[in-house]
Amino acid sequence: MEALIRAVLPEWARPGLEGRLPDWIDVAWWRDEAHLLSLAPSAEIGWFDMHDKAPALAAIAAAPRLRWLSSAYAGVDWMPLGELAERGVVLTCGAGLAANQVAEFAVMTMLGHARGYREIVRLQERHGWTRQPPGGRELMGSRALILGYGAIGQAIARILAGFGVDCVPVRSHAGKGVLGPDDWRGQLASFDWIVMTLPSTCETRAMLGAAEFAEMKPDAVVVNFGRAETIDQPALVAALEAGQVGGAILDLTDPEPLPPGHPLWALPNVQITMHLAGIPNAASRRRAADRFLTNCERFRRGEPLEAEVDLARGY
Amino acid sequence: MEALIRAVLPEWARPGLEGRLPDWIDVAWWRDEAHLLSLAPSAEIGWFDMHDKAPALAAIAAAPRLRWLSSAYAGVDWMPLGELAERGVVLTCGAGLAANQVAEFAVMTMLGHARGYREIVRLQERHGWTRQPPGGRELMGSRALILGYGAIGQAIARILAGFGVDCVPVRSHAGKGVLGPDDWRGQLASFDWIVMTLPSTCETRAMLGAAEFAEMKPDAVVVNFGRAETIDQPALVAALEAGQVGGAILDLTDPEPLPPGHPLWALPNVQITMHLAGIPNAASRRRAADRFLTNCERFRRGEPLEAEVDLARGY
Repeated sequence: MEALIRAVLPEWARPGLEGRLPDWIDVAWWRDEAHLLSLAPSAEIGWFDMHDKAPALAAIAAAPRLRWLSSAYAGVDWMPLGELAERGVVLTCGAGLAANQVAEFAVMTMLGHARGYREIVRLQERHGWTRQPPGGRELMGSRALILGYGAIGQAIARILAGFGVDCVPVRSHAGKGVLGPDDWRGQLASFDWIVMTLPSTCETRAMLGAAEFAEMKPDAVVVNFGRAETIDQPALVAALEAGQVGGAILDLTDPEPLPPGHPLWALPNVQITMHLAGIPNAASRRRAADRFLTNCERFRRGEPLEAEVDLARGY
Repeated sequence: MEALIRAVLPEWARPGLEGRLPDWIDVAWWRDEAHLLSLAPSAEIGWFDMHDKAPALAAIAAAPRLRWLSSAYAGVDWMPLGELAERGVVLTCGAGLAANQVAEFAVMTMLGHARGYREIVRLQERHGWTRQPPGGRELMGSRALILGYGAIGQAIARILAGFGVDCVPVRSHAGKGVLGPDDWRGQLASFDWIVMTLPSTCETRAMLGAAEFAEMKPDAVVVNFGRAETIDQPALVAALEAGQVGGAILDLTDPEPLPPGHPLWALPNVQITMHLAGIPNAASRRRAADRFLTNCERFRRGEPLEAEVDLARGY
């Protein structure tokens, strides 16, 4: 008879997993930070996601038997990637699980910018009326540069195509309708939307800065649903204040929460959406449970796992 | 040499038409109500659109030589259709010109409902923050009944398909993925979105009423970008208050403007968008000018005009 493998999993994932786990897993469900820390030393398989990162990191440090660390987060740059590599721990992430919900949210905010939705909301709030639409832009016929063409970028492009938006992704090799990594900067002026969905790596940090903002159309909109670090945020504020850029939609900001006095709050053409786009919903929790179960079977057979993180690249 | 034909056209259409009109047209541009009334008696071709309908109707009555009346409005039920028929005046309307802009707007508000956009806007307003998304619905995988499958209904269905929404139009004949006029009522409970884009006719008046609302899913959303009369509005208010229906998005209401004390304003799951979706923007004005020029040529050759209204049916 085969030895059981100990898995330490979050209570919130229990409804999606209980009764579906393979019989070689000996599961313990953690409820809170203290409970997780007490269970971590036994974990061979761990799922330690917490909104506060410090206790999750403490659990990783307290789990010497860990062989596979599962996360439902798409961005895992906060994890001790070098240490996990040294310890031989395999890390899987949530890449793609939230792609559709993030993409729908991103397109909602783009439409909101185009049509002045926020002003309509404010008007309804005070039972007001107007014959002057606050925004008259259509998505149809506009052009979007897609910087970051992973699951989220692809989902955004798929949805925007249905609106008749010409989406041009940036990929490692240029091609028909695709720009290479060295080509997009020279063509910034031809885009109405600069859509960013990049991870935070050495190459992507401050990828958009003063020089790029200066090249954009004055009514171009910067849309960031990737990491905050990929934008030089003070340079963006300056470009918005100078009217070099027409607007910004920022799901991620530096820092979070954005403090009440921050200049980004005061800019009328900026939407701050509080990192809400990818917070798990019923559909993405179901997808996360399904992926975990798929990976249990692969882990048992010693196969590469789905959404396994390249610990050297960081995504 | 051919006789000139007198056209009385709105000043706002001048930038899109001047220099492009055929040489057999003798044009006069009207600036305001009084100017229009003074020019109307000479008009053989007229374009009398005004937001206030009374002066537009007075101009029609004062134009005995009128042969073709052009309008950029999609809904022409406010026109004296019987009188135009008797006088032998051909009427063309704006059907389709605003379809894309209305469809984009409609989908924006559907996304807004699904993700609690209005609450996010209010939170940003006060520089707030949250980790709890106010709405967790995804469009992907949901089902939409499309009641009214003209240009607007088709544009909405095209965009929603890009989101992975299963759109089922109602048409005069049932078919694969299409419900017939007598079939949809029995299937109301299977839809998440009831999207209405109907004209106001004898058949469509109060098409959704108490009986239909009672059949819907409790989280179904009624989305109306067609005429207000196609919904029994007091019955909708009652169904929303009773929780029989999960929400409503109403671009058109009865009356307009909706008075400040009206119960619709007070319902939290209702969006009132003030008939803003179809108000002409730069793109739709260009499309209106292009259609007028196309119709000039057809009028000259005695051919049927584009978007010619069936005066008996009313659309």
